[in-house]
Amino acid sequence: MAAGANKVLVAQGGGPTAVINQSLAGVVLEARRHLGIERVYGARHGVRGIINEDFVDLTAETSHNLELIAGTPSSALGSTRDKPDIAYCQQIFKVLQAHDIGYFFYIGGNDSSDTVRIVSEQARAANYPLRCVHIPKTIDNDLVGNDHTPGFPSAARFVAQAFAGANLDNASLPGIYLAVVMGRHAGFLTAASALGKKFPDDGPHLIYLPERVFSLDKFLADVKATYERYGRCVIAVSEGIHDASGEPIAAQLAKDLERDAHGNVQLSGSGALADLLCEEIKTKLKIKRVRGDTFGYVQRSFVGCVSDVDQREAREVGEKAVQYAMWGDASGRTSGSVAIKRTGFYSVDYELLPLDAVAGKTRTMEDAFISESGTDVTDAFRMYLRPLLGSGMPEAFRLRPAPVAKVLGK
Amino acid sequence: MAAGANKVLVAQGGGPTAVINQSLAGVVLEARRHLGIERVYGARHGVRGIINEDFVDLTAETSHNLELIAGTPSSALGSTRDKPDIAYCQQIFKVLQAHDIGYFFYIGGNDSSDTVRIVSEQARAANYPLRCVHIPKTIDNDLVGNDHTPGFPSAARFVAQAFAGANLDNASLPGIYLAVVMGRHAGFLTAASALGKKFPDDGPHLIYLPERVFSLDKFLADVKATYERYGRCVIAVSEGIHDASGEPIAAQLAKDLERDAHGNVQLSGSGALADLLCEEIKTKLKIKRVRGDTFGYVQRSFVGCVSDVDQREAREVGEKAVQYAMWGDASGRTSGSVAIKRTGFYSVDYELLPLDAVAGKTRTMEDAFISESGTDVTDAFRMYLRPLLGSGMPEAFRLRPAPVAKVLGK
Repeated sequence: MAAGANKVLVAQGGGPTAVINQSLAGVVLEARRHLGIERVYGARHGVRGIINEDFVDLTAETSHNLELIAGTPSSALGSTRDKPDIAYCQQIFKVLQAHDIGYFFYIGGNDSSDTVRIVSEQARAANYPLRCVHIPKTIDNDLVGNDHTPGFPSAARFVAQAFAGANLDNASLPGIYLAVVMGRHAGFLTAASALGKKFPDDGPHLIYLPERVFSLDKFLADVKATYERYGRCVIAVSEGIHDASGEPIAAQLAKDLERDAHGNVQLSGSGALADLLCEEIKTKLKIKRVRGDTFGYVQRSFVGCVSDVDQREAREVGEKAVQYAMWGDASGRTSGSVAIKRTGFYSVDYELLPLDAVAGKTRTMEDAFISESGTDVTDAFRMYLRPLLGSGMPEAFRLRPAPVAKVLGK
Repeated sequence: MAAGANKVLVAQGGGPTAVINQSLAGVVLEARRHLGIERVYGARHGVRGIINEDFVDLTAETSHNLELIAGTPSSALGSTRDKPDIAYCQQIFKVLQAHDIGYFFYIGGNDSSDTVRIVSEQARAANYPLRCVHIPKTIDNDLVGNDHTPGFPSAARFVAQAFAGANLDNASLPGIYLAVVMGRHAGFLTAASALGKKFPDDGPHLIYLPERVFSLDKFLADVKATYERYGRCVIAVSEGIHDASGEPIAAQLAKDLERDAHGNVQLSGSGALADLLCEEIKTKLKIKRVRGDTFGYVQRSFVGCVSDVDQREAREVGEKAVQYAMWGDASGRTSGSVAIKRTGFYSVDYELLPLDAVAGKTRTMEDAFISESGTDVTDAFRMYLRPLLGSGMPEAFRLRPAPVAKVLGK
């Protein structure tokens, strides 16, 4: 370790998850046990906190409270939506230098990994001894080179449990139920709805992913066929569904209908897509009971729905990040992006990928995970996702009823 | 017991809850241990299943599976939205007679209790020995004569946990967050959002209930003041908010804005109200980050968020219903509506109310539960609700950060 640059800085970027504080606790607790480390700082609200020198000293925070915070969803340091360009990164680097930061850990998704990459390159060019590690986090599960990303399993568990419940509700009061799930480019989270199914006629009966082109006519035909078969239909829709030209369906529907209550279509934090699709079903298929939900922010922030597997992995990627930075990986690399590597059913190991192997790239669902119909997942996806959801998944049970002969009727 | 009329019929009506199957299991398991009972039937999809003679024989269902179903949310027998009138009730009575039903248990809310009342009167008029017990259930908590209703505590727990998470998310990425909660006439479920607060500056900062007249100008002023004070604002809004004339705000906003994507305003199963209120905040207050969710069906059906207190009470109201019908209450009454009576902090007992004391009446929030500002709850409400939420409520924790002196800045 270079003399002087003996401080650690950790920050959190992008959308919060249920386990991002596990990674924070992993970094802080692990960094504090290394003798060469003088201080462990946290930046408030991600990169914005760095350029504003808005730091807090985590050296004296109790281990006990850090453990409690680890179990609390959302970003305890605060987050930001800022996407730094080169000049912004130069600012970051200047601040890191001024505070004798020798180790920079940034917990985030695609954009965050790119920030880490640029800052790392600037440090190298300036011959400043900075070790930079990106710690993965995103409910979208869209980082390349990762088996999966911390945060996704807990959000997936929420979606699976929500659909398990919605299916029961819909079976009780039959009709159409449709819910819109987050994930603009990657359908993993929407696909997780399939893990809410148990009995063969359970919903979701139809799943629409951004990896496949959405056709409104095909959608209405699918819904009609399912409704005729089961007398009801439960549908999972990604917020990112789009037509062949890439135009979001929400925008297209709003236009087609010459309606503008949702004017400037915003995919998240709005019920527009669900409402517009429900409207199509009601008018075109003449089905009366049609209900639409938009899971919204609850799916990433709900307190009390977390995968224990996700928790422990999120903790470990934080710890491993510090260990890689201190000791290097097998090849001696001390900067990079920590990734989860699946080794068994179910076991994992961790590795440090080069930053440019991850930064700014977007993973989408493999074809092998999507059924030929395009509206369901495969067993390969179930095998992939089930272990991530963790222990104690609630299960639904049914009456196995013996019908009673009619006395008055027929 | 009259000879012949020795069968039990149980049915479930209205919107499902997380614990309505506890009451079902309570009825079936208790009824089966009474020697005089020949059969225990269930009607599929509530009163509709009765007039269609769509019965299943629950006598042979295993106790083990009934226990598992008790832990499964939503109505295992299926439900209905039918609201029987006198003629419909006559149909019901005719079917009960034809099947030698001597005991009729209907698990439901306001409308269901009124159905039980009418059927009971018809039996008495016909001199047919029918004992009718209404078993309370509603997430809205709007039955009179009840301390609270089974189903409400679990839905309240969902809402409290959802707001605890939304508050953390909003603190991480500051802005405005607004979520619409079910409950058209009674604000109990919306008010439950207050139980998601822990630290003094936690949200929800503002709570809008149907028990108070909603003014858009006042709302915008409240939001502005909160945003200026905390740099963020979390808001809970009942789907039932209305102006002084009683007109729903959703309808009014849609009209004001001359926008009709939500045309025929439907309060549940639509994101209209949240989106319209967000639009008002964005345009009138010029705040950029404004997000709206509508909790929708998830709040009543989510698998995996249930109050253990709610579970045991829902089970007991089912058991007690059968015991009252078999043995009568202290006054000898064998028909009525089971109610939960609070006796301590926290303990309960049960009583059998006359059907006409409950049927068709709507309870709303007591004034003592609503703060003078009209946008918060009182400690009396916290005392009322907290024990109902049950054990193991997740808790949020925070960093207690020591600021670091700036090196470059200022």
